[in-house]
Amino acid sequence: MTDIERDVREVAERARDAAADLAPLSRAAKDAALLAVADALVARAEEIVAANSEDVAKARENGTGEAMIDRLTLTAERIGAIAGAVREVVELPDPVGEVVRGQTLPNGLEMRQVRVPLGVIGIIYEGRPNVTVDAAALCLKSGNAALLRGSSSAYSSNTVIIDVIRGALAGTEVPVDAVQLVPGLSRDSVKHLMRARGLVDVLIPRGGAALIQTVVNESTVPVIETGSGNCHVYIDEAADVERALAITLNSKTHRVSVCNSAETLLVHAGIAEAFLPKALAALRDAGVTVHGDDRVRSYDDSVVAATEDDWGTEYLSHDIAARVVDSLDEAVVHIRTYSSAHTEAIVTDSQTAARRFVARVDSAAVMVNASTRFTDGGEFGFGAEIGISTQKLHARGPMGLPEMTSTKYVVTGEGHVR
Amino acid sequence: MTDIERDVREVAERARDAAADLAPLSRAAKDAALLAVADALVARAEEIVAANSEDVAKARENGTGEAMIDRLTLTAERIGAIAGAVREVVELPDPVGEVVRGQTLPNGLEMRQVRVPLGVIGIIYEGRPNVTVDAAALCLKSGNAALLRGSSSAYSSNTVIIDVIRGALAGTEVPVDAVQLVPGLSRDSVKHLMRARGLVDVLIPRGGAALIQTVVNESTVPVIETGSGNCHVYIDEAADVERALAITLNSKTHRVSVCNSAETLLVHAGIAEAFLPKALAALRDAGVTVHGDDRVRSYDDSVVAATEDDWGTEYLSHDIAARVVDSLDEAVVHIRTYSSAHTEAIVTDSQTAARRFVARVDSAAVMVNASTRFTDGGEFGFGAEIGISTQKLHARGPMGLPEMTSTKYVVTGEGHVR
Repeated sequence: MTDIERDVREVAERARDAAADLAPLSRAAKDAALLAVADALVARAEEIVAANSEDVAKARENGTGEAMIDRLTLTAERIGAIAGAVREVVELPDPVGEVVRGQTLPNGLEMRQVRVPLGVIGIIYEGRPNVTVDAAALCLKSGNAALLRGSSSAYSSNTVIIDVIRGALAGTEVPVDAVQLVPGLSRDSVKHLMRARGLVDVLIPRGGAALIQTVVNESTVPVIETGSGNCHVYIDEAADVERALAITLNSKTHRVSVCNSAETLLVHAGIAEAFLPKALAALRDAGVTVHGDDRVRSYDDSVVAATEDDWGTEYLSHDIAARVVDSLDEAVVHIRTYSSAHTEAIVTDSQTAARRFVARVDSAAVMVNASTRFTDGGEFGFGAEIGISTQKLHARGPMGLPEMTSTKYVVTGEGHVR
Repeated sequence: MTDIERDVREVAERARDAAADLAPLSRAAKDAALLAVADALVARAEEIVAANSEDVAKARENGTGEAMIDRLTLTAERIGAIAGAVREVVELPDPVGEVVRGQTLPNGLEMRQVRVPLGVIGIIYEGRPNVTVDAAALCLKSGNAALLRGSSSAYSSNTVIIDVIRGALAGTEVPVDAVQLVPGLSRDSVKHLMRARGLVDVLIPRGGAALIQTVVNESTVPVIETGSGNCHVYIDEAADVERALAITLNSKTHRVSVCNSAETLLVHAGIAEAFLPKALAALRDAGVTVHGDDRVRSYDDSVVAATEDDWGTEYLSHDIAARVVDSLDEAVVHIRTYSSAHTEAIVTDSQTAARRFVARVDSAAVMVNASTRFTDGGEFGFGAEIGISTQKLHARGPMGLPEMTSTKYVVTGEGHVR
């Protein structure tokens, strides 16, 4: 066993022990700890900003772009907002202990299925150091120990943030080891985290497609896939053109860098003449490059020729792929072939078309006459989300606190035997 | 790509296409197909029995024991019972389409979370050919395509059974490829099934610990672990001795070969004197060998010395490990260390002890004053089960039809944008 493997396992074992003590805690105890964390973040904002400036300086040395620098940068004001988000988590109901179902069986046994924490949640994430606090708060509220592995670009910030959180926990009923940073900066430490089956109950990778793919392929710990969004907007023959324009523009341009933005536009041939010239002009005006098939290109010279690769690409930029289809079913087949099964929208006034699209598209969320941008824990009223799952097992779509739990059957008798 | 890899992928692709057509089918269409399957099994029982006798003959040649031969053997009567089980699945409610939650959001969007099939379920199982029919029926009812990989010892039986099922489906709305046998007898075909991520949505191994471990370690397809049961009975200081005896005996001896039978007995030191002499005598009378620690052995000469291995062993035989503990918490630590987290029971009259045990034991089911044998889909009123999950993600404990589904968010607006 190498040093780093031993270090990672030690941290994971402490997390497992902390999880056992954390699971039975009351909501009051967990909320008190979260409030202490929020207060400590504000009280020690100066230390956090100082550590963060080291990360920012390094990023500049490495030639990181301004957009990324901005995402990395923490200020006292931003730390105040992060602490505010922790206080919002305090207000959310505690999922642990909820009775999911229950009944008295014919033989008199009382059976209840009760929500319990998952145990130890490992979160591997890139970029912004606010994720460190968000993830820790959501794990604590749902009774889970958090093993956090942020990107090396935010290592100084994360180290101090975790120190602040653990310092705050020391004065509460929540065990300090319920929040830990995974040691080491190398890829090796991620590897050993992915192999800590039996110690870590679930891994949630948050970041780019490459990170998620690596974790999915190499982890023996169960993984929840999040965030990859090749989302489609389908304009049906029976669509209202104005709605179709508004939803297309909003889905693509409201915020291009997020997983629920649209990446492909599919247009029914029967409405292409009425819709596409306006849509292509509006997209161009919004600075969007359209990558279209020949039929789309026939409406506008500025459309770039789409290649096979475009259909599968999550641009996360001012680009969109576009294609004319001859039927709703052709749109469904395209989506089933290329989509990452995050969110697809149909714009239509036809009940029959909407019903068929909803039944046949197999994605986490299907929007009818609404922007793809609505697939979001906040928009859905969950209060906060740890990510958006694009897998079918355990959780699908925005994951709130209940999705961070498992269940347990509790069966009570009076000497019952079979 | 080898021949077998190509064959497995082709079968999986056909399953994926069949799943797309199966998912939107009504309950009526699925139930009609299941009834056709039940009828066909009875009508073609003779063919099935003939194929089965080949498997049985081979098993005898290979020196298989009589108990295994009995499990393998099919008769017209047994096939009638298997068809009857299919008709019982027809009576169960269809989980697909159930609205799990729903609300109108403040902005007027109507949001519903709806149960949908998982898609393609691969089931890898050992032994009894009745599993072929049970698994196919549960998959069809829940709208999933089934890829079945039984053991080579039942290959002839399974081949004919699948042929009968597919023949019956041919006359129904359910696509024939919704039920397929994974081709090939070698371990290679299992390997390629485990690598068919993107085609197969979930793998459920049903069988011994070695099979399950292999699938968990090697599969890139998400796995639901089932069936490994190192179950504990803890006799608390405040237990009623008669109840404790009845629950211990029933948990161990009612049926020793099943996953919810007890494998370890933990006894509080404060009740050892009153309970253990009677329990050890009763277990001995029932033909059970007790593997005890020194304190247990001090009560009865027939107790064999337990080794460290005994605590982690799922005997599935007339053996039980036994240990005296000084406190409930010591019992909990023992369970958390050695249990497979299937089912643990406490026998106690103390509310405080029961509450603490339930809160601290992290297993799929916790029994209070009831036999471990009650962890069962039938006993829980689920009507049928595809297995008992011992993992925390997605499903935990007996898995009925709802556990064979995922969900999808359907959001309806009237041109909503952000």
